[in-house]
Amino acid sequence: MEQKNTIYDIAKALNITAATVSRALNNNPKISENTRKLVLETAAKMNYKQNKLAKSLRNGKSFNVGVIVPRIDSNFFASVIRGVEDELHPEGYHVIICQTHEDEKREIDNITTLLNAQVDGILMSISKMSEENEPIIKRVVKNNVPFIFFDRKKSIDGVSSVTIDDFEGGYLATKNLIEQGCTKIAHLCGDQSLEIYQNRLKGYKQALLDNGLKYNQDYVIQTKSNLDAGKNAVVQLLALNEVPDAIFSSSDFAALGAIQELKERGVKIPDEFCVFGFGNEPFTRYLELSISSVDQSPLEMGKMAAKVFMEQINNTDNIKIEKKVVLKPELQIRQSSTRSN
Amino acid sequence: MEQKNTIYDIAKALNITAATVSRALNNNPKISENTRKLVLETAAKMNYKQNKLAKSLRNGKSFNVGVIVPRIDSNFFASVIRGVEDELHPEGYHVIICQTHEDEKREIDNITTLLNAQVDGILMSISKMSEENEPIIKRVVKNNVPFIFFDRKKSIDGVSSVTIDDFEGGYLATKNLIEQGCTKIAHLCGDQSLEIYQNRLKGYKQALLDNGLKYNQDYVIQTKSNLDAGKNAVVQLLALNEVPDAIFSSSDFAALGAIQELKERGVKIPDEFCVFGFGNEPFTRYLELSISSVDQSPLEMGKMAAKVFMEQINNTDNIKIEKKVVLKPELQIRQSSTRSN
Repeated sequence: MEQKNTIYDIAKALNITAATVSRALNNNPKISENTRKLVLETAAKMNYKQNKLAKSLRNGKSFNVGVIVPRIDSNFFASVIRGVEDELHPEGYHVIICQTHEDEKREIDNITTLLNAQVDGILMSISKMSEENEPIIKRVVKNNVPFIFFDRKKSIDGVSSVTIDDFEGGYLATKNLIEQGCTKIAHLCGDQSLEIYQNRLKGYKQALLDNGLKYNQDYVIQTKSNLDAGKNAVVQLLALNEVPDAIFSSSDFAALGAIQELKERGVKIPDEFCVFGFGNEPFTRYLELSISSVDQSPLEMGKMAAKVFMEQINNTDNIKIEKKVVLKPELQIRQSSTRSN
Repeated sequence: MEQKNTIYDIAKALNITAATVSRALNNNPKISENTRKLVLETAAKMNYKQNKLAKSLRNGKSFNVGVIVPRIDSNFFASVIRGVEDELHPEGYHVIICQTHEDEKREIDNITTLLNAQVDGILMSISKMSEENEPIIKRVVKNNVPFIFFDRKKSIDGVSSVTIDDFEGGYLATKNLIEQGCTKIAHLCGDQSLEIYQNRLKGYKQALLDNGLKYNQDYVIQTKSNLDAGKNAVVQLLALNEVPDAIFSSSDFAALGAIQELKERGVKIPDEFCVFGFGNEPFTRYLELSISSVDQSPLEMGKMAAKVFMEQINNTDNIKIEKKVVLKPELQIRQSSTRSN
């Protein structure tokens, strides 16, 4: 049988560590171009086969990190991923992405897929609250694979998270509408099985309370994050006896749908009706009537989640670290909530 | 030493094939819920460790497919990926995604990362033309890992591709502008190192020729795909002695920037100036002045690329298949190019 050379043989031949060989073969940017060339040449000379790399990495690191998001076609999640990459790429890590389409079964599939792909850690924003994904997440954590939630999380022992203060975001957006003179503020509140939407609703309620406005249950409509949901909500709200004069929407997409429907019905924005979104999707500023929105610092969120991962992967003391990072939201006040006087 | 059970042992115990066990452990939807439960229970009883799965899959299939795109925060690429997933998920495949940020070094990194993650195939849209990524792509193909280009491709023997007819897209968009009465049509032509942009430019030229309009080199500006590029192009075009009366932009983002700058300068769209984009990004229809654009059927493109992958992975005859699929583009004619008379 042919004698097969390993990365350890290459390391020995070059008098460098096996880790350096592994990183060089893996195109880790921390390795100088000279070393990389030398390793590749030596590997070729020694007839080293690349498919052995995976095997050698089994016991070490793959330098791959998995990110799981509900959907990639949202500027928010795409920007978080960009932040993760910006932080991890200089450390020699590659990011691989999976999307769940809000389907919990796919979420579990994705975790399995990434583990099979030998990732060193998983950063995830959950699809919806449920009990089904807890066992697999707990198993990941038990196996000392760093697992970090960002934005949408659930509370699981040992799992770190990076979120924004959704309560504060809901509070500030509602307060802005009150300052514009709105007194009958409706809220499109999103799927209440997710903590982020629960907290935005709580912030909305608290802002009403702190400003002497009464909470009206008819003004709170649970909506999906799309245009039609916003349009339908407006139809419902305008049919009320006491028609609202503003909407705080937990979704920019629903906010846009609401604005389109209001315009269709001849309601003047912002003079007769103000609208505030959430998420700061790029289209909110492209529109002729630009939409006020809550910015969630996605780039910073991604970088922070990556930093938490790095802390955990570099933690050789076998101490369990659980870290909760909460970022501050920032209002982007635009035309849809800015009255002239 | 402890005797370790493999998927073959589980298969034997249940009198099913190892492939079925592997699929069940991998949450393949082709496997019934009952079988999956049975396999999981048996695996647990036999103390089968999941990390052995990767090893067992080494010689078979991982049921993971890698998709590499320049960026995920574009509706076009996100929709292609959706199409790939829609086609492959029922077949039991999981899709993992990498982005290159138009950086060729990362492109090569991503291919290595996906190979290390044991994917069964790679679908890729290239970042830019260059010689550097050819060796690794040729190596992938040589190792019988299906490799398929979509949208942005280069010509490499043995590599299949799914694209749209960019020439036709450029031709039809330009023809639409001519039919609206425009005679001095400028073109924002994108990075000419990519075939797709070369072909859109060729389509533009041919449409001018076929309609008796002369080609004016001053009217063709190479731009990036962003708002500022479109704004700057308008500044340049309006400074010409013979000011154009229309723009066909190879990018919706540049088209939007152009429209913003034209409005800023009081140019009336579409009466004094028409604009046609490319890509059919969702914002083009959200705007108050909606933008005409060329739709590239991204969902269909993704499905088709996935079908080509399936053909290749199921090709047991060891025959090399190279397939070139070209889809038809479709015009979405909106306000920015529709004159009232």
